[in-house]
Amino acid sequence: MTDKNGALLKLHTLDRERMYLERAAAVLRWDQETCLPPKGVEDRAEQLALVEGLAHERLVDPEAGRLLEELESHGEALPGLPALERDFLRVFRRDYHRALKLSPEFVRECARAEGLSQAAWVDARKNNDFAAFAPHLEKMIDLARKKSEYWGWTAAPGAPGSAYDGLLDVYEPGLGAADIAAVFLPLGKKLSALLAKITAKAAASGFFSKDPRRWDVQKQDAFCRELLGTLGFDFTRGRLDLSAHPFTTTLGFNDVRITTRYAAEEPLSGLFSVIHEGGHGFYELGLDPALRSSCLAEGTSMGIHESQSRLWENVIGRSRAFWEGWFSRFTEYFLPQMEGLDFDSFYRAMNAVSPSLIRVEADEVSYSLHIILRFELEQRLFQKTLRVQELPGAWNKAMEEYLGIKPASDTEGVLQDVHWSMGAFGYFPSYALGNLYGLQFWEKLRECLPDTDAALARRDYTAIHDWLGKNIYRWGRRLEPRRLLADLTGKQLSAEPFLRYIEKKYTELYEL
Amino acid sequence: MTDKNGALLKLHTLDRERMYLERAAAVLRWDQETCLPPKGVEDRAEQLALVEGLAHERLVDPEAGRLLEELESHGEALPGLPALERDFLRVFRRDYHRALKLSPEFVRECARAEGLSQAAWVDARKNNDFAAFAPHLEKMIDLARKKSEYWGWTAAPGAPGSAYDGLLDVYEPGLGAADIAAVFLPLGKKLSALLAKITAKAAASGFFSKDPRRWDVQKQDAFCRELLGTLGFDFTRGRLDLSAHPFTTTLGFNDVRITTRYAAEEPLSGLFSVIHEGGHGFYELGLDPALRSSCLAEGTSMGIHESQSRLWENVIGRSRAFWEGWFSRFTEYFLPQMEGLDFDSFYRAMNAVSPSLIRVEADEVSYSLHIILRFELEQRLFQKTLRVQELPGAWNKAMEEYLGIKPASDTEGVLQDVHWSMGAFGYFPSYALGNLYGLQFWEKLRECLPDTDAALARRDYTAIHDWLGKNIYRWGRRLEPRRLLADLTGKQLSAEPFLRYIEKKYTELYEL
Repeated sequence: MTDKNGALLKLHTLDRERMYLERAAAVLRWDQETCLPPKGVEDRAEQLALVEGLAHERLVDPEAGRLLEELESHGEALPGLPALERDFLRVFRRDYHRALKLSPEFVRECARAEGLSQAAWVDARKNNDFAAFAPHLEKMIDLARKKSEYWGWTAAPGAPGSAYDGLLDVYEPGLGAADIAAVFLPLGKKLSALLAKITAKAAASGFFSKDPRRWDVQKQDAFCRELLGTLGFDFTRGRLDLSAHPFTTTLGFNDVRITTRYAAEEPLSGLFSVIHEGGHGFYELGLDPALRSSCLAEGTSMGIHESQSRLWENVIGRSRAFWEGWFSRFTEYFLPQMEGLDFDSFYRAMNAVSPSLIRVEADEVSYSLHIILRFELEQRLFQKTLRVQELPGAWNKAMEEYLGIKPASDTEGVLQDVHWSMGAFGYFPSYALGNLYGLQFWEKLRECLPDTDAALARRDYTAIHDWLGKNIYRWGRRLEPRRLLADLTGKQLSAEPFLRYIEKKYTELYEL
Repeated sequence: MTDKNGALLKLHTLDRERMYLERAAAVLRWDQETCLPPKGVEDRAEQLALVEGLAHERLVDPEAGRLLEELESHGEALPGLPALERDFLRVFRRDYHRALKLSPEFVRECARAEGLSQAAWVDARKNNDFAAFAPHLEKMIDLARKKSEYWGWTAAPGAPGSAYDGLLDVYEPGLGAADIAAVFLPLGKKLSALLAKITAKAAASGFFSKDPRRWDVQKQDAFCRELLGTLGFDFTRGRLDLSAHPFTTTLGFNDVRITTRYAAEEPLSGLFSVIHEGGHGFYELGLDPALRSSCLAEGTSMGIHESQSRLWENVIGRSRAFWEGWFSRFTEYFLPQMEGLDFDSFYRAMNAVSPSLIRVEADEVSYSLHIILRFELEQRLFQKTLRVQELPGAWNKAMEEYLGIKPASDTEGVLQDVHWSMGAFGYFPSYALGNLYGLQFWEKLRECLPDTDAALARRDYTAIHDWLGKNIYRWGRRLEPRRLLADLTGKQLSAEPFLRYIEKKYTELYEL
């Protein structure tokens, strides 16, 4: 018993040191995106490489392996160990083995290839020259396949699936390509059909981007701070800042920072980024204090994280009830600009549906289609049923099938996203999984809290946070996504709640 | 030759890692003072302790000791080694031995005692209760004496000086208490006499603090940014931010950040802080790129650093010529507030002399007196000719002798500064040394650049920076203060140039 506890304490010390170093690295990265003087980048890269390297050293410390073995020698079940400690050991072991299976040489090779690949992608995108990027993409796919194999996926003849499964598992533990395909493919068909109905019925009325009146950026910021605070973001435990691309980062248990950017010609893009990142922030700020400074103190997966951000941004933030609470306040901030704009037009404008070429600008109906398309292409690349040089053609074909539009260039087609150039295969699905999880949670929440619309209309978010906190936020990595979902909803991953939500909302909106 | 170079390269790697970690810790500290959400302090303290501990590990790495020995075995002179490498070895060795001589247990004991002492000082200051702080101060003096002994000062009977010499050497390498006393004591008498003459002649006319008109803080910031940029601060290599107490910190070779704070009732306090910290910044930004990321890449001493900040703040920033360049611009920024205020009154107001109880609010004439008083008391404490319980009395007596005023309470007397509670004995002299060095440099600069007043009046600072850069900035820690001063002026430390400057300026200003 003493030995077991001694080993466990030592493991916690290693883990805590790793987490403090990772948080320190996160401070360096946050500063880089928000504050760093332009010429400071070189030294910062060196500082980051060093601090991240030291964090990694703690993760793969041979002492950790020895301690894990010692604890295992006490028997599989480790009798008497509290559930929290069991979860800690499971997650620590997962991180340890995953990290250990990649040799330092291989990690360096990946980093080098990634650097070259990203630079090539920037040029290729600028010059609309997919061919110039193709060899780098081949290389990144090759390295990703190797990575998946190092992690334990086997290419033995007759083995099910592809190396892609091993990659998906990084972002969404326990979910394979077949599980995702079973949900994504029918969803794609239905969303595509709905989108076609909407576009046949009406042209989008996105008045904001065409409005020549300027929306004062300082006022946007003031409104967003009021909104974020009212939504429940605790500014004694976090910050809102500006950066080129919005993001959320955790620098400490009581230090979660989100960023946004504002455009003077358009007031809602910055605002919805704030709500989206706020959703990520609520999750990280809602962790059980017992997980503090341990490897459990993070969101459990990319998909669950996106379920929170997309729930707040879209399901809550673009709802009638929500704006019943905020419309008049927003109008006070932007009196001249909002003159003559009634609630309904405002609500329609923020929910305008229009198939577009670019994922990050997509509306709620077409967004998941962009993701499903990418998922299918990734799967085929790793199944080797699609070659890299065939990718632009396959992309354009799928765009036409799903969205009914076709990119005029690869720049606004297959080259638009940074993810593949970084070798982040398996990451895209998280975005659409977030939509699905989000609505599975939301249906359950509304069962438990039937007065939610009224609460939203009076800007009272307490019950929502209490429910999400108790059922999702606090668990961190203790519950894997599958388990979290099953415990809470009694269901597996399903697109039904999301489809119900989308069909109801947009049938009404577009009077289909 | 190969071995020697191999050992040197390894030493540089250790040194670079230490410096990157120290810079990373500086990022964490900067963020703490400017950005950190209030509740983030606890985790930040842990992150800082860890990163600073890792930096320290590199400094005292036994491998460093082995490499230094190996290099020494190649002979004292290390024939063929470039001067830069010799300087590197000298400074690295100094840091290494200094750090090695304090055991980890002793460092922890100091940190613990410092924490308690600072907390006790905060309370004692609030409650005007010196007696409650006295035991902590005794302890800090005792620890400082031990530290000095560990570093090599010997208490043997007949040994010259006191443990204080060993502490002074931290901040001002090569300068002992006797050297400083020889200059400070006559300076104190002369400044005190001048101050008495001024106060007999005229009451101070510090109109700013009494002015009920508010000075818009955003305008102050805009003016300060314009001023700082024009002075030559490169915003692609640095930043200006807000913090409770102004400071300068180096986060990378191209990342030097200064802070200030603004008061709406007074426009010059924030502004002179910007110029003061800007002076520190110019020094750090002017280092020779060859020193980058090494232990040489810092100002050579606290005193020399203060010589730069105080030169810019006072000698340049409070001069007639400087404001001939900026008065009309400043008036443009603050048109209503400046109405009816002519150049002469403005210039007089910023140079108003009035003995005050608080060091940080002191004018140019009395500032050094506050320092000399502290130096004398520190010296007596370490010579054991003054006991801690006698300190308040000695303080008040010296205040009356030097400044002709007496604190009504210890809070605005002996308890006003944080330094002693931190055990930073020997730090205070740097401030006055900065005044002296600064004028020694400035007299030389004006010999070389006789048109300086005209350049200042047309806001052209290029020649000044070129001269300071070539003679001071670029050297970093390669030249110790004594050597820097001797090479540049041919002189030892002297108060004569400072006294000449003060007497001329204030005799004219107060028509003595």
